[in-house]
Order: sequence, then structure tokens, then C-alpha cells
Amino acid sequence: MTKDGRAVTAQSEDFSAWYNEVITRAELADRGPVRGTMVIRPYGYRIWELLQEELDRRIKATGHQNAYFPLLVPASYLDREAEHVEGFAPELAVVTHAGGKELEESVVVRPTSETIIGEMMSRWISSHRDLPMLLNQWANVVRWELRPRTFLRTTEFLWQEGHTAHADAEDAMRETMLALRIYTEVARDVAAMPVVPGEKTPGERFAGAARTFTIESMMRDGKALQAGTSHYMGTNFARAFGIRYAAEDGRLETCHTTSWGMTTRMIGAVIMTHGDDRGLVLPPRLAPYQVVVVPIGRGEEIAAAAARVAERLAAAGVRVHVDDRPQHSPGYKYNEWELRGVPLRLELGPRDLAAASAVLAWRIGGEKENVALADLEEIVPRALDEFQDLLLRRAADFRAAATSAVDDWAGFRAAAADGWAAAFHCGEAACEQQIKAETAATARCVPNDAPEAEGTCVRCGRPSAYGKRVLFGRAY
Amino acid sequence: MTKDGRAVTAQSEDFSAWYNEVITRAELADRGPVRGTMVIRPYGYRIWELLQEELDRRIKATGHQNAYFPLLVPASYLDREAEHVEGFAPELAVVTHAGGKELEESVVVRPTSETIIGEMMSRWISSHRDLPMLLNQWANVVRWELRPRTFLRTTEFLWQEGHTAHADAEDAMRETMLALRIYTEVARDVAAMPVVPGEKTPGERFAGAARTFTIESMMRDGKALQAGTSHYMGTNFARAFGIRYAAEDGRLETCHTTSWGMTTRMIGAVIMTHGDDRGLVLPPRLAPYQVVVVPIGRGEEIAAAAARVAERLAAAGVRVHVDDRPQHSPGYKYNEWELRGVPLRLELGPRDLAAASAVLAWRIGGEKENVALADLEEIVPRALDEFQDLLLRRAADFRAAATSAVDDWAGFRAAAADGWAAAFHCGEAACEQQIKAETAATARCVPNDAPEAEGTCVRCGRPSAYGKRVLFGRAY
Ligand SMILES: [Zn+2]
Ligand SMILES: [Zn+2]
Repeated sequence: MTKDGRAVTAQSEDFSAWYNEVITRAELADRGPVRGTMVIRPYGYRIWELLQEELDRRIKATGHQNAYFPLLVPASYLDREAEHVEGFAPELAVVTHAGGKELEESVVVRPTSETIIGEMMSRWISSHRDLPMLLNQWANVVRWELRPRTFLRTTEFLWQEGHTAHADAEDAMRETMLALRIYTEVARDVAAMPVVPGEKTPGERFAGAARTFTIESMMRDGKALQAGTSHYMGTNFARAFGIRYAAEDGRLETCHTTSWGMTTRMIGAVIMTHGDDRGLVLPPRLAPYQVVVVPIGRGEEIAAAAARVAERLAAAGVRVHVDDRPQHSPGYKYNEWELRGVPLRLELGPRDLAAASAVLAWRIGGEKENVALADLEEIVPRALDEFQDLLLRRAADFRAAATSAVDDWAGFRAAAADGWAAAFHCGEAACEQQIKAETAATARCVPNDAPEAEGTCVRCGRPSAYGKRVLFGRAY
Repeated sequence: MTKDGRAVTAQSEDFSAWYNEVITRAELADRGPVRGTMVIRPYGYRIWELLQEELDRRIKATGHQNAYFPLLVPASYLDREAEHVEGFAPELAVVTHAGGKELEESVVVRPTSETIIGEMMSRWISSHRDLPMLLNQWANVVRWELRPRTFLRTTEFLWQEGHTAHADAEDAMRETMLALRIYTEVARDVAAMPVVPGEKTPGERFAGAARTFTIESMMRDGKALQAGTSHYMGTNFARAFGIRYAAEDGRLETCHTTSWGMTTRMIGAVIMTHGDDRGLVLPPRLAPYQVVVVPIGRGEEIAAAAARVAERLAAAGVRVHVDDRPQHSPGYKYNEWELRGVPLRLELGPRDLAAASAVLAWRIGGEKENVALADLEEIVPRALDEFQDLLLRRAADFRAAATSAVDDWAGFRAAAADGWAAAFHCGEAACEQQIKAETAATARCVPNDAPEAEGTCVRCGRPSAYGKRVLFGRAY
């Protein structure tokens, strides 16, 4: 509770404080004892599980297989030049002792499984018949984080990492775009996030990738959050790890590879896309509880009726929770479940029961209404669908209102101060750097579906590259 | 292929070689580059996923919630006395460098999450209203392994770890037995393993536990494998981590806790419970492919018919795979899928198609038979159920035949040489040690459902403890 009695700090007052308070008060996560680590509490982890289910189903349906590769990777895989642990990239956590003694060769905790999967692919792939090889892994990875932020930048995070090998560029590019499409759909249809799929500029590309694609989403403070990436690696990675195959004509060819990932940062994105000054707002498809039933009064009859309602809704496929804690008042419970973002609330008191009805309250966007108990199996799932649509529409409207097509530098500065600027750009890395230095805004992506257009660079006036406007914004 | 052309070494010839060959040839797993680590390949990982689904559903249905705790734990959590990394338990992997420099306090890669979960529980629990706290985690853990064996003893393995806190001993013991019952059911009904649930003797108890329960399963070499454990920790663990609650009367009480886990070693158990000299045999409920369809001949008509059959079976909820690789003969495919343990095979050739039938072959226990294509949705699921039952019965028969109730030392030695001995024991740790030194057999458990009986210790002749016979055997 803030000093003046509100549940959380207002977004407009201090967005960052609001974010941290929501995470703590909604019991999504706690800080872990080791720098930058987090404990994902049951309520937060259930959101991740629901996202996982949706993503995993789509990954499997498109022919990918899950596998599991070791957490510990020989240091030599990551940097063949580093002879001392002091020489490792700062993001790496290095195991120097195990088995009760110092290791002859240090091993690192995977910052990604790219190298070990590359190594195994080089052993598993020999013929064109082994291609495409479509692998995915659900795992934890560790990247030492100096400025940690729960869900957004954590020393350890959870993710899925897709790694695939293909016979040629065309097939690998098809895969890269397939992964991007899966991410776009999951973000939109599950997380109610109207993300913008597009390509990164060369300056923002993933190290080693030939092309990097992203889904960019807008948070309610106008900043951008990269919610998933898909990389076409060309043959760069396969050459480094010797991933080769005998073609039909017997010649040895190098594979084209891709990699793509989505992480627990999506939970942070959901918080910042939908939340408001009363706390979290969850899209029904990711809500641990889609409906909370609050019995009013302590009669046995009420308790039994609430249990019956919950049973019926559960049978109808609704995730429902009865808050029957005797020590709290209904008002306290309403506030708490609003803070925790539950989409719908059913209030059930003696008068409701007598009228064979309940009061249905929406977390946002709806008036309280009396609904007939007999119709709950019809009303509640429909309301959940409407709630899901409402969040997507609301987020899309917000993004549209906070995105401006700008053609001059003053307009760019204004747009990028609290939203996104859609502007022409020359494509020069130095010019992008200049823009970043002056406004903190970076090129988020060249949107896949932006209309074709030409113009002059919003910063330097040279002719535009990319054949369309580029989205710029400050980013998480 | 072995030298004389068999797919794998015979079990009777070298069980250990057989095991390793099956894992490699069936593409279940590979060795990882860091000592004792494994790469779980898609076929092996799918078995784990299917087991996970079954276990997770039961864990959730009994009121537990999943959460996620950090991989990296402060060294001080594990051993407050160890001041140097050389002082750590040999099983620990220690991170000494991260962020590009040496850490002020070393952190360890979790060998279990017990300590960090204990620490968080002490923060989350304050009132009796917070109890019971029923948590579960799916995670990887690392225990440096000097004698690694794929799936059975690996430096990193995957598991679920349940950790729960309760107001009193009675509730915690109920939980301990609930977890044991879940494990027993999953082993029996999913993995077709007729495990023996029972209690560990004090000498075999988990360090710090007040009581340790186990499910013991018999491998086809007569050895025992501990396939899951459930511990009642009393208040030992809660005292160490300060897990306390205010009781209804306001007094501060110490919680009673439990912990329980099942790991990827279950995959090794499945291999060694059901496999035979032709390779792996998978229980249908854990088989990535329950049925493989092998088209005979290359006609388009056959290919289309095979695809149709697969589609119909998939719609009927069967996991089916069509092996349409043009470069391999049907015979080659039969051998390969037998080696990989697929329960049922459907052969579909031109003559079958003309007769609107297919040939159904069982991996074990059935004759080849002609089945009408029209009846597949009925025949295949039924055959899969029968196959599942058959494996359980076969394993139970094997275990019964290899278990002997013995009352003298000569009988004990003979029984423990290639199976289990059910014997009276005095309950003295020194006597157990003596038995182990002489026969390599250890007390596996005091079976929960063994009949009450008294006798004299099979080794030393003193009066029996436990009120029933104890199972002894050599163990993995
Ligand atoms: Zn420019
Ligand atoms: Zn004795």
C-alpha cells in the first residue's frame, strides 16, 4: 500500500515503481539471493506455464521436436581464445571448481545453448535426408546482469530456444519467418499484445546473424519491448561448428541455420501492456484464475452455492477460484483480486442467491451486472472472450495513438519522447547511433507490413533505405 | 550393430553394454562434452515429456502449485562452515567468476533447491493460514558425478522436486504418503513398473529426514532401482531455515516439512524394466510413437493409404508415425522400430490394401495378425491398452520370480546374487553394513504392504525389527 492508501503507485507518477510494486503485491515474483536472480512465485509461474502450453503446441504442430542439452558447456565452445576466466565475456558465469577440486578446463553455465546444439548437430547431420533438423529446447540460461529488473533483465531467465538446420537459404528463411509468425500469433492471440513483426536494422542485428527479425510491443509508458526474436544465421554458424551434409549429388554442403527465442520477459511485457493504476490486468488466456468467486456472508448455504458455481465453471473449462478466506471482507478481496489482475469477479450473496443470480464485475471495461446463475456456463466464457478482445483492442488503440509518422527532426524528438516514431532512415549505423545519443531511441524494426514508401532520413536528410518507414522508440 | 549382426549385445551377455547400446542406437541420449552430462535427444526427451504430463497433472490435482527458484544459490546456504571452494562437498559445481571478475562470495549450481525454497518459505509463511504450503518445481540440478551412467547417474539431471510445509506432523506425514502414492501410481499406470512402495531403513534414510519412503523397482538384471523418494523431514529442516508460523492461539510454532522427487532416471528404469535382446520396449503411455505405419512398396496409392491410416489414428488419440523413408527396406524399418521400442507396427502393402486390411505386429507378446482397416480406431487403442497391461504383468511376474523369501544366510546370498531377498533383519546399521560388504546387497525398503511377521535376523540371528520382512537387493 502506498502512503496515501492506494494499492500501488500510479503509472503516471513513477512507472518503474508501479512495475516493481505490482510484481511484489500481486505475488508474481521475488528477488533471489544471488544478484539479478528471481524467484517466480506460483501466480507468476502459472502465467508462464500457460504461455508455454500455447507456444509449445504451435512449435510441435509445425514439426519441431523438443530436446534437452546440458547446462554446462566447455569454456572453449564459447571463446576459443580465452585462456583465463578473467578473459571471459562479463555475462558468463564460470564454474571453476567441481568434484571437490579445481577443474582442468573451466566450464560455463550456458548463456544460450547455441554452441552445444551446434556441436551436436554437426555430429547428427550427415546427409540431406537428415534435413531439415528442427529442434527446440525449454531451459534456463544465465547471463550475469549488472542492472537487473525482474522478468525484463535477470541473471537467470527461462526461455525456449529453437535451433534448426536446413539445406539451403530458402528453407532456412522460411523457417525464420515461421518462428516469427508463431511469436506474432502467440503474442496477439494469447497475450493480447498487438506486436509489430519486422526486421532489425543491421545495427541492431544479433551478433553473427545474417538477418534478425523481432516482434516489438509497446508498453503503457510508450517504450518498446522486444518480445521475441528469430534469426537467420546464413551459413556463419554452421561453418563455425562444421554442420555439413552430403547433398543428393554427393557434394558436401554447409547447412543454413536459424535460431529463435521467447523468454520469461514476456511476463514483464504482459504486466506493462495491460496493467493500470489498480494493478495487474491479465488476458484471460494467461490468467491463472480467470474468474474469482467471492461469497458474501458466512452462511453454509452461500459457501455451498459458491462451490457449486466454481464446479460448474471448472467443468465448462474456466479457471476459477473461490476466495473463501474467513478473515477478509468482500471489499478487501475485491481490491486484492483487482490488484492481481483477475479478469472477472462473481459476487455471490444471500440476496443474489435468493434471486438465483450473481453479480458479475469486469476488471476493466464493463459495468457490474446481475447475471442468472443458470446461464453462467454461457455468460462467463463469452465474457472472457470479450475481455480478451477488449485488451487486444485497447492495446492496439494505445499503440496507434502513441505512434506518429514523422518527417522532421523536431517531430521525431517529440514522438520518441513518449512513444514511437515511424520515420524514414538512411540505413547508416552511425546515423542510428547519433539518433540514440540524442534521444535514447533506437531503431526497433522495419515493420513487415508497413506500406512501401520512400523519403529522406529524418536525422541526416540522405535518401531512405528499406523502402518503408522504420519504427523508432526507447526500449526495455 | 554387434559383430555377429545383432542389433545390440544380449542382456545375458553384458547387461551394461546392452543398456548403453540401446540408449545410443534408439537415439535416446548422447554424452555431453562436460563430464557426466547428457544430451537428451528428441526421442528420449519425448518420453520425459509424457511422464511429466502425467506426473504434473496428478501433482496439480492434489493442490500443489508449481514455482521456479533460482539455479544459483549462495554457497553459504549449503554449508555455512565452508570458507574455501576446496571445502565444498565434492558433488557441488561452484561458480567463482561472473560479471567478468571473481565473485566476492562463490555461488553453487543447485544440487537441489531445498535450501533456497526453505529460505523463501521462511519469508512467505507467517500464519497458520498460510499452511499447508504445497510447492513443486520442475528443474535441472547438478551433482558432479564421478561414475556417470546415462539417465541413472548424471552430473546434470532433470526432475521435479516437491517441497511442502505443514502445521503438524500428522499433516506432513499425510503429504509424504500422498507423494509416495502418486509416484507408485505413475510408475505402475504410466511406466508399467510394478514398484514396491516402502520405507527406507534408518541406515538408508535421506540425510536430515525423519522418515524416507521410496518406490523400488526391479530391473531385468535383478537389480533394484530407486525410482522416486518422499521424505518427511520432521521439524529438522524448518528449524534450520526458520520456517515458523503463528498458530491460532498466537504461539509461534515450527513447521513440519516434506520433500519428494522423481527424475530423468525414470527413463533408465523404463529401459531396464521392459527392454529385451532386440532393444527397447516402451509402454504405450510413454511411447513417443505408439504405432509405426510401414508402407510396403512405393506406389502413390500405398503412400496415400498410409497417410490416411495415420490421420485416422491420430484423430483417435493415437501417437502414430509413418515411416516413408524411400532409402530403407521394410525389413530394415521393422528392425529399427523394434530396436526403438515402438509397441505396435502396421504393415500396409498392395495386397493388404486390396483386402482393405493391414498386418498388425506387436513388439512383444502377440502374433502378427490381419486387421480390417475399417476397424483400426477400435483395434489399435485396445491393443495399446493390452500391450500396456502386458508389460506391467510381465514385469510383475519377473519381479515375483526373482524375489525370494529367505530365512538363512546361504539362501540370502543366493537370492541377492541375481534378485531380491525378502528377509527378517535386526534393524542394526552395522549388520546392514556387514550384509552389504559381503553381498553388495542393501536394504531397499520395508514394503508398506508386506504382511506382518516376526523372525530372526537373516545375518546375525537377533530378533527382527520392523514387524515384517525387509527387501534386500543390489541397487543402481
Ligand atoms: Zn541518416
Ligand atoms: Zn542383524
